[in-house]
Amino acid sequence: MTTLDRLLTLLALDSLPRTGWLQAGVPAPESVAAHSLGVALVAIATADRVAPPLDVDRCVALCIVHDAPEALLGDMPRAASRLLPEGAKRAAEKGAAVELLGSAERVAAQRWAEYAQGVTREARFARACDKLHLGLRALGYARAGLGELTDFSRGVDELDCGEFEPLEQLRAELSAALRERLDRR
Amino acid sequence: MTTLDRLLTLLALDSLPRTGWLQAGVPAPESVAAHSLGVALVAIATADRVAPPLDVDRCVALCIVHDAPEALLGDMPRAASRLLPEGAKRAAEKGAAVELLGSAERVAAQRWAEYAQGVTREARFARACDKLHLGLRALGYARAGLGELTDFSRGVDELDCGEFEPLEQLRAELSAALRERLDRR
Amino acid sequence: MTTLDRLLTLLALDSLPRTGWLQAGVPAPESVAAHSLGVALVAIATADRVAPPLDVDRCVALCIVHDAPEALLGDMPRAASRLLPEGAKRAAEKGAAVELLGSAERVAAQRWAEYAQGVTREARFARACDKLHLGLRALGYARAGLGELTDFSRGVDELDCGEFEPLEQLRAELSAALRERLDRR
Amino acid sequence: MTTLDRLLTLLALDSLPRTGWLQAGVPAPESVAAHSLGVALVAIATADRVAPPLDVDRCVALCIVHDAPEALLGDMPRAASRLLPEGAKRAAEKGAAVELLGSAERVAAQRWAEYAQGVTREARFARACDKLHLGLRALGYARAGLGELTDFSRGVDELDCGEFEPLEQLRAELSAALRERLDRR
Amino acid sequence: MTTLDRLLTLLALDSLPRTGWLQAGVPAPESVAAHSLGVALVAIATADRVAPPLDVDRCVALCIVHDAPEALLGDMPRAASRLLPEGAKRAAEKGAAVELLGSAERVAAQRWAEYAQGVTREARFARACDKLHLGLRALGYARAGLGELTDFSRGVDELDCGEFEPLEQLRAELSAALRERLDRR
Amino acid sequence: MTTLDRLLTLLALDSLPRTGWLQAGVPAPESVAAHSLGVALVAIATADRVAPPLDVDRCVALCIVHDAPEALLGDMPRAASRLLPEGAKRAAEKGAAVELLGSAERVAAQRWAEYAQGVTREARFARACDKLHLGLRALGYARAGLGELTDFSRGVDELDCGEFEPLEQLRAELSAALRERLDRR
Repeated sequence: MTTLDRLLTLLALDSLPRTGWLQAGVPAPESVAAHSLGVALVAIATADRVAPPLDVDRCVALCIVHDAPEALLGDMPRAASRLLPEGAKRAAEKGAAVELLGSAERVAAQRWAEYAQGVTREARFARACDKLHLGLRALGYARAGLGELTDFSRGVDELDCGEFEPLEQLRAELSAALRERLDRR
Repeated sequence: MTTLDRLLTLLALDSLPRTGWLQAGVPAPESVAAHSLGVALVAIATADRVAPPLDVDRCVALCIVHDAPEALLGDMPRAASRLLPEGAKRAAEKGAAVELLGSAERVAAQRWAEYAQGVTREARFARACDKLHLGLRALGYARAGLGELTDFSRGVDELDCGEFEPLEQLRAELSAALRERLDRR
Repeated sequence: MTTLDRLLTLLALDSLPRTGWLQAGVPAPESVAAHSLGVALVAIATADRVAPPLDVDRCVALCIVHDAPEALLGDMPRAASRLLPEGAKRAAEKGAAVELLGSAERVAAQRWAEYAQGVTREARFARACDKLHLGLRALGYARAGLGELTDFSRGVDELDCGEFEPLEQLRAELSAALRERLDRR
Repeated sequence: MTTLDRLLTLLALDSLPRTGWLQAGVPAPESVAAHSLGVALVAIATADRVAPPLDVDRCVALCIVHDAPEALLGDMPRAASRLLPEGAKRAAEKGAAVELLGSAERVAAQRWAEYAQGVTREARFARACDKLHLGLRALGYARAGLGELTDFSRGVDELDCGEFEPLEQLRAELSAALRERLDRR
Repeated sequence: MTTLDRLLTLLALDSLPRTGWLQAGVPAPESVAAHSLGVALVAIATADRVAPPLDVDRCVALCIVHDAPEALLGDMPRAASRLLPEGAKRAAEKGAAVELLGSAERVAAQRWAEYAQGVTREARFARACDKLHLGLRALGYARAGLGELTDFSRGVDELDCGEFEPLEQLRAELSAALRERLDRR
Repeated sequence: MTTLDRLLTLLALDSLPRTGWLQAGVPAPESVAAHSLGVALVAIATADRVAPPLDVDRCVALCIVHDAPEALLGDMPRAASRLLPEGAKRAAEKGAAVELLGSAERVAAQRWAEYAQGVTREARFARACDKLHLGLRALGYARAGLGELTDFSRGVDELDCGEFEPLEQLRAELSAALRERLDRR
């Protein structure tokens, strides 16, 4: 694929709704693109307070490519991960990343691989931001009265963000706010 | 899961858009539920003209359950089938069917298994209706000016419906109508 | 109309939202197509437990055509039935069914007529599934926090499914679950 | 109904899509509310050029209530008018108007009745604006590439707006612009 | 612009969602067009009970043009008014009104200017209807469980409609109904 | 605002449609969030080929915050810029950026300011990516048959990306592909 073909294929992220929200009954939920941006915004809003310092900009770059394969594969929800054979989803994502982000010497491909491996501190940070954005989006829907969100709230309770203090603080606030909202219903 | 839990989970078919149409740029495309119904309507509109006779009602029942697993798995597009390891998608669907349609003595589970195996004439007929409905929906979008449909049109050209004469006739009409529409653009 | 013309006209079921949900404030509600499929899924999930046995596949076929006329007529809500002259809606549906499903010797037309007359056990069963799917969809919306559903909940309370034991059991579960949800709000 | 109940019921006009556009394959088409406003805007943009002078403001008031009954009845498309018994739709609309707009001494009810009777010059003008707005909206969709619009274009060709010169001029422009657009496709 | 160009540009009101509702998390909220119609319906449902009498039809005409500039400018939410320099929004609206509604001798332009100046009783009445429709729409969403509406509810509490008795009564009913709904959540 | 409040406010980017596409008649167009992500993807797919080298990750970070103020202000289309007093939009964006991204020592605020000033090579590059993404999205819509895109196509023709060779190459490809598509219609 040329760069133009890749970018045209990636446009599909605009219109792909996140499957998990549909299954939770949220009407017209966020797209995969909106989620990817949201994760990057969580990262840039918190990474500069982490000690020892992170490469904030690289964290952002990891976030914006982490779900790029979904432009080809669609957004497979939690049940798909559970029901597909071990490693199958990961293999498909790797293949899709090569098609969409190019060979290993390209920066986009390097950032995706770093995120997927989850070894560097920046990658671990970006992965935690991905989980926290799920909780943030759940709180947004909870405040607007939308969706069946108990499982999402529990997910935030059980998250471990201890490695990055600003994320742990955000997690605790999200957890408390979600519980308070959902109890009220 | 109880019957009620299963039926509540199957409601997700309402709001899951068919991923392939999103990737082709069709705005607000049909849901998986609408597709499943559409396949069944193709079947009931043509099966009674097939010789030797088919069990029309069983054909319909095969159609309405054939995509039920997507309520759990989401709608994996063509590229997912290509990029997942051989047999992975099929295995996940089988697992989802058990959760959603029950054990092997239930009629719903039997109909899904018959469709998946594709051995009986009714199953082969229902599978052809699934493909034809894709062409029908493409023609509908083509007439409304929506989406990039060349690949879908080619798919209809290459389909082989020779076993069932009324389907072969419908295929030929769809093929001609799609080509005429897309040439005009 | 040719078979192809009929099938193209029936595609409109995809995009017709159910008017009653719009009036109840549910955003982006199910289509008529999704409802028709849902009724068929209720049928296939329960019909094989009915004694004495039903023709399960014919029940399914009755369900998938029962709202076909709405492709021409739109989805007239309860208030339309109340305000139209006696018998007017039924007459229009009969005319639309002839255009969309063909003459009396076609299976699709026979199934629609059987449902409309409501005389056979299978037809009575399918009609009960139609009502129960309304309750099921209401419960789905209630769990997602959507819509003003008190009237729908009352409708489930007042339904009589005594003829078919698995439906009566489902009705009771729906009724209890709806009441519990709506009280909480 | 109290005034508040009536106004709450009329909110449904917001979310009711115009059925004819859905049947023509237009994705996410205008609501009945948007159509009603659009008719009023056509009226106010042209009525002050009509000779002899019209009561411009009353024309506007006729337009904004003309489809109010659809809040209860839904939007019945052309085929419904054709297939319902003679006079049935009109009777239902009259009943709905009484519930939604009040008794005969209220201005809203008077404006609706004047439009429905179509006797005064203002009513004939408002009814012509209703038809022209259909053509205008069709041209908007044609320019955006949406929907199968040949029938709508023909409708504008056949309209007779000779009584009101500014409307006849607009009709001619719409007719030419629609034909030019649709020929191009 | 010709009249046709203006009317085509005004079609954008159909698809512009009201930004404030999006920010409050309401899914698929009313369009600017639907809001404009709704304000006019509040006016016609109440103006004929005001003493001394108002020109009811002119009130309606003021309502239908009041947001016309948004077809060019988009719907700027409350925060935009707060953050733009004093008078900037008003100046832009005035410029847009000239482009969309024509020069000062046209009735549409006169009605917009009368509303914008807010001096006549009819203009003050129409402006109060604009505010009340916000409360009405909020109550509709509250009854359907949608959106974070506390600020909107407070807005209705603080409104002063004392000049027009039927509006003050409606305001009081809205205020009570909103508070009751929101407390329940 | 706390970090959590800011992130909750930024969620609105998910559901804000880009006003320009609505005005061009594109149904259900991309959100501001999807646009922001898309600009960042254009940047990461091309920046590593620019000579002399750019800070690729910082380019990405500039892109993801550049439209953050729209979470408060809504998406003001081209006509708003034209009709608002000189500098008014910029002032409002600056105010919104402070509320949403924090004070000047925060990285998010620094990236936004760098983009807004447009002085560094990275900022000029990100601004060019913003313009090119508009052309890319237009080509995506053109291929799907959606929207009236002539103005957007002309915009790509007139763009000057000469400073960054990979962007100039992409611009030329977009320009040719858009012209070819739009001529065909």
